[in-house]
Amino acid sequence: MTGRTLGEIARELGGELLGPGGMIITGFGVLEDAGPGDLSFVARAGLAAGVSKSLAGALLVPVGFAPDRPAIRVDDPHRAFVGLLDELAPPADLIFPPGIHPTAVIAPDAEVDAAAAIGPFCVVGAGTRLGAGTRLGAHVVLEADVTLGADCLVYSGVTVRYGCRLGDRVILHPGAVIGSDGFGYLPGPEGMEKIPQVGIVVLEDDVEIGAGSCVDRAKAGRTVIGTGTKVDNLVQIGHNVKIGAHCALSAQVGIAGTVVMGEGVVAGGQVGIADHLEVGAGARLGAKSGIWRDVPAGETVFGYPALNIRESFRITSAVRKLPDLIKRWRKIEARMEPQQEQE
Amino acid sequence: MTGRTLGEIARELGGELLGPGGMIITGFGVLEDAGPGDLSFVARAGLAAGVSKSLAGALLVPVGFAPDRPAIRVDDPHRAFVGLLDELAPPADLIFPPGIHPTAVIAPDAEVDAAAAIGPFCVVGAGTRLGAGTRLGAHVVLEADVTLGADCLVYSGVTVRYGCRLGDRVILHPGAVIGSDGFGYLPGPEGMEKIPQVGIVVLEDDVEIGAGSCVDRAKAGRTVIGTGTKVDNLVQIGHNVKIGAHCALSAQVGIAGTVVMGEGVVAGGQVGIADHLEVGAGARLGAKSGIWRDVPAGETVFGYPALNIRESFRITSAVRKLPDLIKRWRKIEARMEPQQEQE
Amino acid sequence: MTGRTLGEIARELGGELLGPGGMIITGFGVLEDAGPGDLSFVARAGLAAGVSKSLAGALLVPVGFAPDRPAIRVDDPHRAFVGLLDELAPPADLIFPPGIHPTAVIAPDAEVDAAAAIGPFCVVGAGTRLGAGTRLGAHVVLEADVTLGADCLVYSGVTVRYGCRLGDRVILHPGAVIGSDGFGYLPGPEGMEKIPQVGIVVLEDDVEIGAGSCVDRAKAGRTVIGTGTKVDNLVQIGHNVKIGAHCALSAQVGIAGTVVMGEGVVAGGQVGIADHLEVGAGARLGAKSGIWRDVPAGETVFGYPALNIRESFRITSAVRKLPDLIKRWRKIEARMEPQQEQE
Repeated sequence: MTGRTLGEIARELGGELLGPGGMIITGFGVLEDAGPGDLSFVARAGLAAGVSKSLAGALLVPVGFAPDRPAIRVDDPHRAFVGLLDELAPPADLIFPPGIHPTAVIAPDAEVDAAAAIGPFCVVGAGTRLGAGTRLGAHVVLEADVTLGADCLVYSGVTVRYGCRLGDRVILHPGAVIGSDGFGYLPGPEGMEKIPQVGIVVLEDDVEIGAGSCVDRAKAGRTVIGTGTKVDNLVQIGHNVKIGAHCALSAQVGIAGTVVMGEGVVAGGQVGIADHLEVGAGARLGAKSGIWRDVPAGETVFGYPALNIRESFRITSAVRKLPDLIKRWRKIEARMEPQQEQE
Repeated sequence: MTGRTLGEIARELGGELLGPGGMIITGFGVLEDAGPGDLSFVARAGLAAGVSKSLAGALLVPVGFAPDRPAIRVDDPHRAFVGLLDELAPPADLIFPPGIHPTAVIAPDAEVDAAAAIGPFCVVGAGTRLGAGTRLGAHVVLEADVTLGADCLVYSGVTVRYGCRLGDRVILHPGAVIGSDGFGYLPGPEGMEKIPQVGIVVLEDDVEIGAGSCVDRAKAGRTVIGTGTKVDNLVQIGHNVKIGAHCALSAQVGIAGTVVMGEGVVAGGQVGIADHLEVGAGARLGAKSGIWRDVPAGETVFGYPALNIRESFRITSAVRKLPDLIKRWRKIEARMEPQQEQE
Repeated sequence: MTGRTLGEIARELGGELLGPGGMIITGFGVLEDAGPGDLSFVARAGLAAGVSKSLAGALLVPVGFAPDRPAIRVDDPHRAFVGLLDELAPPADLIFPPGIHPTAVIAPDAEVDAAAAIGPFCVVGAGTRLGAGTRLGAHVVLEADVTLGADCLVYSGVTVRYGCRLGDRVILHPGAVIGSDGFGYLPGPEGMEKIPQVGIVVLEDDVEIGAGSCVDRAKAGRTVIGTGTKVDNLVQIGHNVKIGAHCALSAQVGIAGTVVMGEGVVAGGQVGIADHLEVGAGARLGAKSGIWRDVPAGETVFGYPALNIRESFRITSAVRKLPDLIKRWRKIEARMEPQQEQE
């Protein structure tokens, strides 16, 4: 994968070489994965425990960390490591070949920038616009009247339904669905009657949506995901939800209709948020939490039903003692009972 | 989007105009979304709190509601609003262009009604039948021996595997998978041995299956979803499950194999139901509940593990008091202990 | 579906005929599904309760089970039943027609075994290799430099991203995504900066991945799923995860990044596992559990947060008594208080 020496990498990073500069680095890996020819990294001085088990041949280490093998000392080992990975990323032209594949079906009135790329078997519907540098993989469907900004990457099998609008540098991973109908019905004499879902989805600049995730269109108006927000795989975002900028939603999160979320919220995996709630800016939602009431800005919550994390941990801790407490309590009760009888 | 006046809409709805009939309505939106040119609605008199924050220019309001802006008074504002949305829905021909796209691959013996539509890159397998008015989007795969009734809508990227049977007016949203193998194995000398999954899936009339949802075929026999049942996105329905008519299953619900569910059950998001259970008609399953035993008809349950909702709330409430109770209790214990020693 | 008599099936299975050998068997079904012409099975003697409700015409029963209708007594009824199902499975050529479909787009340098099959609208990228007997359904995307061993089955709409390596007899169900980017970012001055995900996914021999499930590629190095492991639908497996051989992961499980799982682990539906944890060989994770710390080999855990299952059940049982305990306790407190005052 590479073939540089440890010394060459040290010079490239401007780091301090600790060990043989002539050592050949053949690849890169996280501690758990790296082999004898690989360079790995230690993010912080406190993480020494995982290092001794690692087979990595060499390490990027932070100031104050005494490595047990050849190393390069740098200010921010994780960031330096990521910089090295950048060089290993395959060229975009391999993943998204340039040009328009002859099998693609493109509506006559679609506006496709000359610097956009469209993969095999894509369907680009009427009234759709693709900005410069935007690339579609295979089997992408842009239903109708869809707008994509510049430099978007849309992987294979993605569907963007009619009217949805994406900003610049949006990334949609394989199988994501943008603009599916919201889940809304009215009771009728013969069962549920479908409420037409005539709103759209807006994904602002630098949004990333994971594989298989679904963002429902609004009943009326807009479902919005704010600038820079990152969404992991298999996440469900309901109709009319408004998500602020720079949030991070982990895999399998579910957000019910009309939730409003502020900026910078972080949600762990499998979190569920009930409909019409507000989650304030900077809130942190612990993995698998069930959010059933508004979360104030900056609060960290956990549990099902979710509470402030300190309260939640206090309760969890108390609950674990309960079986023993009940035993001790029964003894006290037993002692009380005879006293009572003696009264 | 529109261009009618408030007065014209009032006349169309047969409602009472409260305010300037000449006001131009440019669009429709829910309270959270609507702008100064938009008409929104207040579902019930009790929901006044959200209204004052809304930017909506005009409102549909119920009898007994005193609006703070131009409005139309109607019997059922939500239903009236939905009726107005209907007019905004894009024409079906835009989403599902009529006719059979020349790129579609259709088995010679497939029976496709002359009034059906098949989108680009669809694959319609041997022995498949499509009823009148049924429309397939792009990249739909009907594997083999699949039957679709009349007026079904099948969005892009849906797979229906062999032998499955759909009634009339069934809607399958993008990426849904109908008839995937059930998850069944027998232990063998070299690991798990796959149990062939030779049954089918039956979706009765008016069933709707959300984006990315999966309905597994039966090991033998049928997995059935009853008339009018609506399934949201990313839901998993296991092999041999039988779901009654007119149920509503919210996003990310998971139903394990051979569950039997009566009519009219409502499940909140992320509910899980263990295998072989029975959920009685009209039961309501609170969001994120873990169902581990049968649920009687009409019961509402909540929690993990799920209990009757009143019991569940009583327990949750008691548990929250536990840390304080333990403190008080320790004082009592401490007082008891010396007494004991004095004895 | 069949047309043999009960006597013929008894002879084929080497079982003991109990009843009329001339009875015509028209199909097979599990107890809940089978009709009067169908043969069903009773797995164990203890399961008699479900039998009386079944409409099955005849049964496969174990030694020691007294059937209430025509039957065949065999050593292992479930296994015998599965053997009969095998004969009903549709021919592979119906599901995956042999040969290379003329619409498929195949890179000039892809190495496709002469005995492989490629369905309509597949995209087989540069540097990809397909082994003998491997079959692709419709709309499969193998991005670039992908290796599939022999006798793999890849259903419609699957994406395998660049560099991923699959062993022999791997099965990928519709819509599965292998090699999507891991969810990793570094904080930057203008928001989260994407960490390039340059590792791969390795699926060893006999792995099966369910419909819509996602396996993220490693940041660097490899995400690995071990030999014979079976993964149900809509499961999320994060970057750099290492899953041992012969595990079974039920639907909607979510495994965060860098988890290490030993051999033979069984996870119920909707389980979540936090990042960097170790789950020991043979551990069993109860449905919907939230795993937040390492699980020792062989342990069974349950709950959110998950604990040893006996501790978890003891706590759950105690918690259910809490509302009543609080009432009784308050009486004791009330009795103590006056005593205190009297002191």
